[in-house]
Amino acid sequence: MDLFRVEKKATGSRARLGRVRSSHGEFATPAFMPVGTKAAVKGLITAQLLELGTSVVLANTYHLYLRPGSDLIRQLGGLHHFMNWNGPILTDSGGYQVFSLSDLRKVTAEGVRFKSHLDGSEHQFTPELSIAVQRDLGSDLVMVLDDCPPYPIEEESVKRSLEITHHWAERCRNAELNPGQALLGIVQGSTYPHLREESAKTLVQIGFEGYAIGGLSLGESRELKTEMVDAVVQNLPEESVHYLMGVGTPEEILSAVSLGIDLFDCVLPTRNARNGYLFTSQGPLVIKQSRYRDDSSPIDPDCDCYVCKHYSRAYLRHLFISKEMNSAILNTWHNVHFYLRWMEKIRESIANDTFEELKNAVSCC
Amino acid sequence: MDLFRVEKKATGSRARLGRVRSSHGEFATPAFMPVGTKAAVKGLITAQLLELGTSVVLANTYHLYLRPGSDLIRQLGGLHHFMNWNGPILTDSGGYQVFSLSDLRKVTAEGVRFKSHLDGSEHQFTPELSIAVQRDLGSDLVMVLDDCPPYPIEEESVKRSLEITHHWAERCRNAELNPGQALLGIVQGSTYPHLREESAKTLVQIGFEGYAIGGLSLGESRELKTEMVDAVVQNLPEESVHYLMGVGTPEEILSAVSLGIDLFDCVLPTRNARNGYLFTSQGPLVIKQSRYRDDSSPIDPDCDCYVCKHYSRAYLRHLFISKEMNSAILNTWHNVHFYLRWMEKIRESIANDTFEELKNAVSCC
Repeated sequence: MDLFRVEKKATGSRARLGRVRSSHGEFATPAFMPVGTKAAVKGLITAQLLELGTSVVLANTYHLYLRPGSDLIRQLGGLHHFMNWNGPILTDSGGYQVFSLSDLRKVTAEGVRFKSHLDGSEHQFTPELSIAVQRDLGSDLVMVLDDCPPYPIEEESVKRSLEITHHWAERCRNAELNPGQALLGIVQGSTYPHLREESAKTLVQIGFEGYAIGGLSLGESRELKTEMVDAVVQNLPEESVHYLMGVGTPEEILSAVSLGIDLFDCVLPTRNARNGYLFTSQGPLVIKQSRYRDDSSPIDPDCDCYVCKHYSRAYLRHLFISKEMNSAILNTWHNVHFYLRWMEKIRESIANDTFEELKNAVSCC
Repeated sequence: MDLFRVEKKATGSRARLGRVRSSHGEFATPAFMPVGTKAAVKGLITAQLLELGTSVVLANTYHLYLRPGSDLIRQLGGLHHFMNWNGPILTDSGGYQVFSLSDLRKVTAEGVRFKSHLDGSEHQFTPELSIAVQRDLGSDLVMVLDDCPPYPIEEESVKRSLEITHHWAERCRNAELNPGQALLGIVQGSTYPHLREESAKTLVQIGFEGYAIGGLSLGESRELKTEMVDAVVQNLPEESVHYLMGVGTPEEILSAVSLGIDLFDCVLPTRNARNGYLFTSQGPLVIKQSRYRDDSSPIDPDCDCYVCKHYSRAYLRHLFISKEMNSAILNTWHNVHFYLRWMEKIRESIANDTFEELKNAVSCC
């Protein structure tokens, strides 16, 4: 069974409709994965994720390895059962979290040593361990361990880092997976187009069920990011799934879809919700602002989500100002709904051959 | 339209089945009201409250008066519309919160001056203002403003306090209500049976649609509490609704039902949930305990709630230890379900004439 199938290509760009098939069901692409770092999408329980039409979620190997432990999750029947999510799950490899969260990160050819951000305990991730952890978790889409260099960084350091990333990718490829698990390679190369190209080609030669682009959204300009995505996708098999890690705003997603990206994850809809930052068809809305004090209208008059159908901006402002946890719950509901409907709109536009119109209508892309 | 009707009396105790009718629907008693202090039951949105079978909720005049302001809630269509709860709402009068939360509380015959716990601003609640605020909120069951003395307290002080409470009750009775709003008096008298009796008689003479018992659960013994409830209920009209404010544990509720109480509210199921303290048919369960680390069983094997059907103790412990907000959401769901099913069980036992058996089966009552 192929992991991915392109179902329709847009005219005028590399945008495409596709379908991912996993042992826990299929989903249409371009798709957005809500982030459930610690085996929970903050603020949404499974019944709500399903009601929102969530098709796939992401969880973090780094966090679950440290707590509660992937061995425990395996004993308890795997991550799907543990978190009561029977749809597809993608787990990242821990490479990015070791880079962004832990102390004392030391990379060698063997692996990466780091101190837990929870208790300072020392650990080492090797490619084999990262895969073993993801086997314990039993996710459907497994990511290779990669080395994430900071940004900006000089070319020689990126070259050294890429050697390690490619060496690890090969070791991950050789590691055992559970039946039904698919392995995705991660293209690195910072903001050097020829290194991105080289990384893509190297990974394709190793051969993965899909390819991700890592190491972006670290502070580089939007133009550079677009250039890198473009350089990578041109060197990936068209018939494989393309995943842009950690991206992004609705506009960035639209732009990346036009470059041929199929899969996205980002904490923006959930984290911003907790900070009272709401996505709407008219642009962002910061709910704490006093202008919403007596505003009886919904967050977004064009939105048909549960929150917009039942609650006013004034009420949501009251919850936020009062630090009520229902503020985070309702805001998250709306933002995730916004993202999932945005992906639906993108898919519909490709299906109807109106993707270019949608893209042109969004001025910032 | 009468607020309350007794539908069946138990044999062997004063327990009774009843029905409260309000402009926002009816509900069966004995009933438990989840607490939505700031116009939100923490952790549960309306769809979930309805799924749990919640029939009536409580909100707090003190909190909503201070923030966002009851005038604002009136402008926005009243509390039902504001918080998206179309069922019955009871609002307390603010008397207890002024006593328990605010600084510089000064009681005179006119009213009570206090400083907001939010910003130290000075305010005065008079009986007329408390009713006006509750008119703005548009609740179905309105409480009179009362003076809540601390515990323990000497008899002479209680007598002075009672005079004020009764004077305020009369002024509340004379204040204008919205059509359809019912007013409940509050019996005080600390732990002096003859003062409780006097207070009940005085309030009955003034005449209210229902009667509440305030000023208990302040540290007095369970025996004293039982004695006070007993002394009060014997002096209330049998055909009026009897509400024991701020009580209590499942066992305390059962005991109070046997004394003739119909209505309860308490933060225990919601607050304890956030602290990881769960109610089960086998007694309390503290989810953070390490013995639940790898426990694949549900919170309560005898519970049929969404949480018990879908999540293990090990997962709920992980969420709690990881400080994930879904911990509070799922724990609250379970605890409120437990309380509502407990009330259902009590009602069924009265209907089937097995209330005494239920009561005897619960050893602690």
